[in-house]
Amino acid sequence: MALNRKLRMGMVGGGRGAFIGGVHRMAASLDGRIELVAGCFSNDPEKSRLSGRDLFLDPNRVYGSYQEMVQREAALPRDRRIDFVSIVTRNDTHVAIASAFLAAGFNVVCDKPLGQSLAQGLKLRQAVRRSGKVFALTHNYTGYPMVKEAREMVRAGKLGTILKVVVEYPQGHALRALDSKAGSRISNWRTDPAVSGPSNCMADIGTHAENLARYITGLEIEEVCAELSTLIPGRTLDDDGNVLVRYKGGARGILYASQISNGEENGLTIRAYGTKSSLEWHQEHPNELLVKQVDKPQVIYRRGNSGLSRAAQANTRLPGGHPEAFIEAFANVYLGAAEAIADEVAGRKPKDSYDFPTVDDGVTGMAFVETVVRSSKSRAKWTTFPKL
Amino acid sequence: MALNRKLRMGMVGGGRGAFIGGVHRMAASLDGRIELVAGCFSNDPEKSRLSGRDLFLDPNRVYGSYQEMVQREAALPRDRRIDFVSIVTRNDTHVAIASAFLAAGFNVVCDKPLGQSLAQGLKLRQAVRRSGKVFALTHNYTGYPMVKEAREMVRAGKLGTILKVVVEYPQGHALRALDSKAGSRISNWRTDPAVSGPSNCMADIGTHAENLARYITGLEIEEVCAELSTLIPGRTLDDDGNVLVRYKGGARGILYASQISNGEENGLTIRAYGTKSSLEWHQEHPNELLVKQVDKPQVIYRRGNSGLSRAAQANTRLPGGHPEAFIEAFANVYLGAAEAIADEVAGRKPKDSYDFPTVDDGVTGMAFVETVVRSSKSRAKWTTFPKL
Amino acid sequence: MALNRKLRMGMVGGGRGAFIGGVHRMAASLDGRIELVAGCFSNDPEKSRLSGRDLFLDPNRVYGSYQEMVQREAALPRDRRIDFVSIVTRNDTHVAIASAFLAAGFNVVCDKPLGQSLAQGLKLRQAVRRSGKVFALTHNYTGYPMVKEAREMVRAGKLGTILKVVVEYPQGHALRALDSKAGSRISNWRTDPAVSGPSNCMADIGTHAENLARYITGLEIEEVCAELSTLIPGRTLDDDGNVLVRYKGGARGILYASQISNGEENGLTIRAYGTKSSLEWHQEHPNELLVKQVDKPQVIYRRGNSGLSRAAQANTRLPGGHPEAFIEAFANVYLGAAEAIADEVAGRKPKDSYDFPTVDDGVTGMAFVETVVRSSKSRAKWTTFPKL
Amino acid sequence: MALNRKLRMGMVGGGRGAFIGGVHRMAASLDGRIELVAGCFSNDPEKSRLSGRDLFLDPNRVYGSYQEMVQREAALPRDRRIDFVSIVTRNDTHVAIASAFLAAGFNVVCDKPLGQSLAQGLKLRQAVRRSGKVFALTHNYTGYPMVKEAREMVRAGKLGTILKVVVEYPQGHALRALDSKAGSRISNWRTDPAVSGPSNCMADIGTHAENLARYITGLEIEEVCAELSTLIPGRTLDDDGNVLVRYKGGARGILYASQISNGEENGLTIRAYGTKSSLEWHQEHPNELLVKQVDKPQVIYRRGNSGLSRAAQANTRLPGGHPEAFIEAFANVYLGAAEAIADEVAGRKPKDSYDFPTVDDGVTGMAFVETVVRSSKSRAKWTTFPKL
Repeated sequence: MALNRKLRMGMVGGGRGAFIGGVHRMAASLDGRIELVAGCFSNDPEKSRLSGRDLFLDPNRVYGSYQEMVQREAALPRDRRIDFVSIVTRNDTHVAIASAFLAAGFNVVCDKPLGQSLAQGLKLRQAVRRSGKVFALTHNYTGYPMVKEAREMVRAGKLGTILKVVVEYPQGHALRALDSKAGSRISNWRTDPAVSGPSNCMADIGTHAENLARYITGLEIEEVCAELSTLIPGRTLDDDGNVLVRYKGGARGILYASQISNGEENGLTIRAYGTKSSLEWHQEHPNELLVKQVDKPQVIYRRGNSGLSRAAQANTRLPGGHPEAFIEAFANVYLGAAEAIADEVAGRKPKDSYDFPTVDDGVTGMAFVETVVRSSKSRAKWTTFPKL
Repeated sequence: MALNRKLRMGMVGGGRGAFIGGVHRMAASLDGRIELVAGCFSNDPEKSRLSGRDLFLDPNRVYGSYQEMVQREAALPRDRRIDFVSIVTRNDTHVAIASAFLAAGFNVVCDKPLGQSLAQGLKLRQAVRRSGKVFALTHNYTGYPMVKEAREMVRAGKLGTILKVVVEYPQGHALRALDSKAGSRISNWRTDPAVSGPSNCMADIGTHAENLARYITGLEIEEVCAELSTLIPGRTLDDDGNVLVRYKGGARGILYASQISNGEENGLTIRAYGTKSSLEWHQEHPNELLVKQVDKPQVIYRRGNSGLSRAAQANTRLPGGHPEAFIEAFANVYLGAAEAIADEVAGRKPKDSYDFPTVDDGVTGMAFVETVVRSSKSRAKWTTFPKL
Repeated sequence: MALNRKLRMGMVGGGRGAFIGGVHRMAASLDGRIELVAGCFSNDPEKSRLSGRDLFLDPNRVYGSYQEMVQREAALPRDRRIDFVSIVTRNDTHVAIASAFLAAGFNVVCDKPLGQSLAQGLKLRQAVRRSGKVFALTHNYTGYPMVKEAREMVRAGKLGTILKVVVEYPQGHALRALDSKAGSRISNWRTDPAVSGPSNCMADIGTHAENLARYITGLEIEEVCAELSTLIPGRTLDDDGNVLVRYKGGARGILYASQISNGEENGLTIRAYGTKSSLEWHQEHPNELLVKQVDKPQVIYRRGNSGLSRAAQANTRLPGGHPEAFIEAFANVYLGAAEAIADEVAGRKPKDSYDFPTVDDGVTGMAFVETVVRSSKSRAKWTTFPKL
Repeated sequence: MALNRKLRMGMVGGGRGAFIGGVHRMAASLDGRIELVAGCFSNDPEKSRLSGRDLFLDPNRVYGSYQEMVQREAALPRDRRIDFVSIVTRNDTHVAIASAFLAAGFNVVCDKPLGQSLAQGLKLRQAVRRSGKVFALTHNYTGYPMVKEAREMVRAGKLGTILKVVVEYPQGHALRALDSKAGSRISNWRTDPAVSGPSNCMADIGTHAENLARYITGLEIEEVCAELSTLIPGRTLDDDGNVLVRYKGGARGILYASQISNGEENGLTIRAYGTKSSLEWHQEHPNELLVKQVDKPQVIYRRGNSGLSRAAQANTRLPGGHPEAFIEAFANVYLGAAEAIADEVAGRKPKDSYDFPTVDDGVTGMAFVETVVRSSKSRAKWTTFPKL
């Protein structure tokens, strides 16, 4: 890393009781290169203060609003103020908060999805480009070493021409709304269009599936044929969505996301079938990558094998058999972003080779959600994916 | 069984080199209740004769054409002639052969799919009804004990209301056509519309997926949105097909069949998600049935467990841990049919409770293929499933 | 096969309610090369008669004692009498029955273990040698295609020098004796030394483990250090046994067999670790063979892959993905024996290359049981395996 | 935690290139409750200095010897000096370093094994007791939530009486010594008795197996019958060891550890068989705990299920389906120790309920190694486990 010190991180969101904020903090701190020094953990100032105390932060660096945070951090001397902010708030606030920090000259790491609409996404992309700052979007599943290995296999031509992609993301937690603890596991705001935008399930997890498939295969969507459903009565937004995909170049795909698949936990899975061989990866067993070929033995590549690609090895901390998992993959996104941020802080141009999801991934995700929503409402079979 | 002797089986098709004929013979003979006594194993009389010799049959009962077989078997005395014929020929001949045997008073077991078109299927259904004979269609995957257990679970309400069904049938053997051994593993006639009818992949294996999903869930298809593709250039018929399904009552489904999924062998898999619990079954690991429920431990029901349904236990030969597989499941279809045939031979009406696929399953399969083909050609998203 | 007819099989044992007799009949009949024509299914003549009727046998060929069967079958003309007998009785009767049939000029297939003692085994071996007849012992687990593939890998040197072998055979059914259905699942005679000989668990299933390890690795035992235990109080014989093994040449091994391993069904598993690579096979998932090598991807060889050895392919009936299982493996033992028997019947010397367990395997098994029992009683650590 | 600040950690060992030191640092920092502030990372002062710089430490807190570190840290004011030291050096130095820090009033976290001999262990135990300080030993595998769940199941009587335990720890990395990169993956000192003590493999990983089995089952070893082997020629110490175990109360066990099991990575696995049910856990798939019962479906308890024990839930960071793994389990040991250390620092007596391995675990581990070594050299079958 370009700096001889830890990067200083601030956080917006992630106060007491929030799940994803804690994940971001663990991921950021895992490798000893980033330290949390400031934050606005809630737009309730008292909750923000208490959360900051839980985290042993200097009370002077714990803020009651993100606007205050932007202003006061920007006013600190260079050698004290945060190097970047991590935004882990609700979907509807990402764009405004990110824009404010970018405008004040801060680098940004932002939780996904980027925002509520493609229009928002395009606007933010412009803001990022104008700012010259680093913007990372935490599509964390691409941080897994064996996902990187999968991408390298595709790039090296080991699959041949990809003919078909099946990517699925079943979860079951929304079933909970059926019993007495209604809503306990699916945040209310997720089902509120004013917060989530036009989709719940497809925006929340379908975008991960889209991102993962694109990251690994490099294929671009040409047309989709989608059906979003609300299978638990009383919801406003989708809790299940199934999409047929036509990729540019002729490959076919199935992508689905569901939050009513009873008993599924976090079953993000991808299978990509090529003319030479195929690959299969399961998020819940992330240390393995299965490669198949007609009439041949199956091969299980394992994280830690010495023959893996540089990309996989560079994102591996432990030898084989010492499993790495979700937090480590998330930390890899932070490591990739941190390399770029350290360059930026040191006044250098970050290398193109740094590997983390950017605002462009976010824009594509927004386009994906909007296209799927449009297709779902359409009586025509196919809806064209927009140019970005 | 109603008879104090083995049932006498004849066979049409299944000569030297044919795969499925051998499977039918093993399945039929496994339980010691059926013996092969006659056959027309090829429409090449010499090949038929040699095949009969391989099988140690009386040369007088080996025929050069199915017409000859019908005529000469019908002319035998009651206590010598076959009780039923097993038809294991190409798709385009099923209906004619079955009709001839039915008309001559023979019971029929027939390989799937029923024929080439819904019209054919409806005609055959009429012939079966008129004949009063037993007609069994070997949708063999419903013969697995844990598939029967799955159906009983659904019937007993253990899944609650089914919200979503994902059934997939990926194979990879058609990839072989790409290399020098082109066509060696996918019979030429399968890709010839004059033989296969309007679909290859969806008719050959998609019908198994449709049958399995309907057998287990009891759900009926209301509308489909399908895309059939020919992903290996130079083929006339589909080698891959993806279908979104709307079931009556509101459940949603994904059904796909593929023969270009490199490295997949025979990956028929079903997942059915209900409001109370969900189930998952894989044909390649058929002795287990996975049941899942949100936030609860997963439960693996295993063939041989004493708490299983009567239907599962009645189709089980070995204790748990002594795996049963494809041939045993196929034999269960024969056992179910044999019970009915024995009744018929003994002059009794077969019970409704006998559990084997019938001409009705075949008709639904034909309707499924035609509806999927029609949908695939349509620019409208949804195509209605016909009333049968 | 050398004959232009089915082989005629007689059976001793396997009457109504017997499990293993039915397995033998399914295995024998599966491939259409053997037909059951005679039997003494119980030493209760009435039960034998009823069992024969269940099997649709000619009542004149159903006998009330094995002695009667030997005498009357031997008196039949050559073209009617049985070609071989299949013995599926209790352990304590194998040797006497086999000897009687051998002496009368019949070939023999016999269930394992061979008998109750090494002395018996050696005597029977002499009888076999003197008779010039075929004697096959149904160590059925060596009939699995992927077990044969494993052996071929070892023979071809793919494992290098084998350093360590871990073979285990846990079952849990003996736990049942704890509840009200005491004894319902473990035959009473199995726990009776007068019937079973000096060991229950090690003789019943430990011999399978020994046979499997020897079949695959070719290693011979030099010394054992064993402990047999009776963990369910009130039993006379062992229900659990653990053995440390020193193989000739220096490899080390662990072999254990257990019938009190709660919830295990039929968990025969072997792992053999060599200097070049290792292999792992699980009886409950028999279609796969896992090969591992330090720091390399794992490779899953699958039944049906075209690159497998001739031995594996010759014992395969179905393409990959169409699972074969217990009965098919058992049938492979019958097929191997049938080739030899057909030669013998045709007056030719059976080839050495036929692959089925013989009386020598039975003798080694008897020596194994006796050595383990002796070691278990010894205060010295190591007990030498006898020369055979 | 009892303190309103992060705990200050020092480290001895773990300089550039060391694997386990990095793991300790990640585990310690994961939850934001511990910060590394000082260290002696090598007994080469220059290497220590460079390692400290890599970690962005204050150069004044980076020491050239552990003695210097003890002295200078002890001389710092209370509100600056370390709260505890983490010792991640070679086995032969643990006792001396730990004793020095304890004597100077510091709490200690120490890598396993405790030392080279039982005598050393007993001496250290005395030092710990005298000091009144916290001493934690990083038997990290007991930090996994599903291991804790397993222990709670046993404690709650869900297994009934445990009859048999099979615990295995196969690795394959020592095979590497066979090829040109000899020694590259197995540290030279591990095979040097002067450093490792009387055992390599059994001390390095066998102690983990012993600790895991004892943690989960609560069973105490009465006698062992062991064979240690050196299967790769040219080594001084064992690279493979197999142990038959007699537990107090009558249960039987198999415990083995191996570093020449080609292709195994880190295969620590335990199966405990009880009269009521059994459990099975694999370190490489740590989020699942399999529970089996004769003739019943198998049940897979999964980390994150809401019905798990308090102990499992308290050691869980993420919802089900978001896998946690090795570092998180390691961090749980640090969290347990940190609770006790925070109490100690705050002047309170740590609660007995804190759950982390202590010096007593280390002493038992030393006794285990010595007893196994003694048994391996003995010609008697059984060697008694000493009273501690």
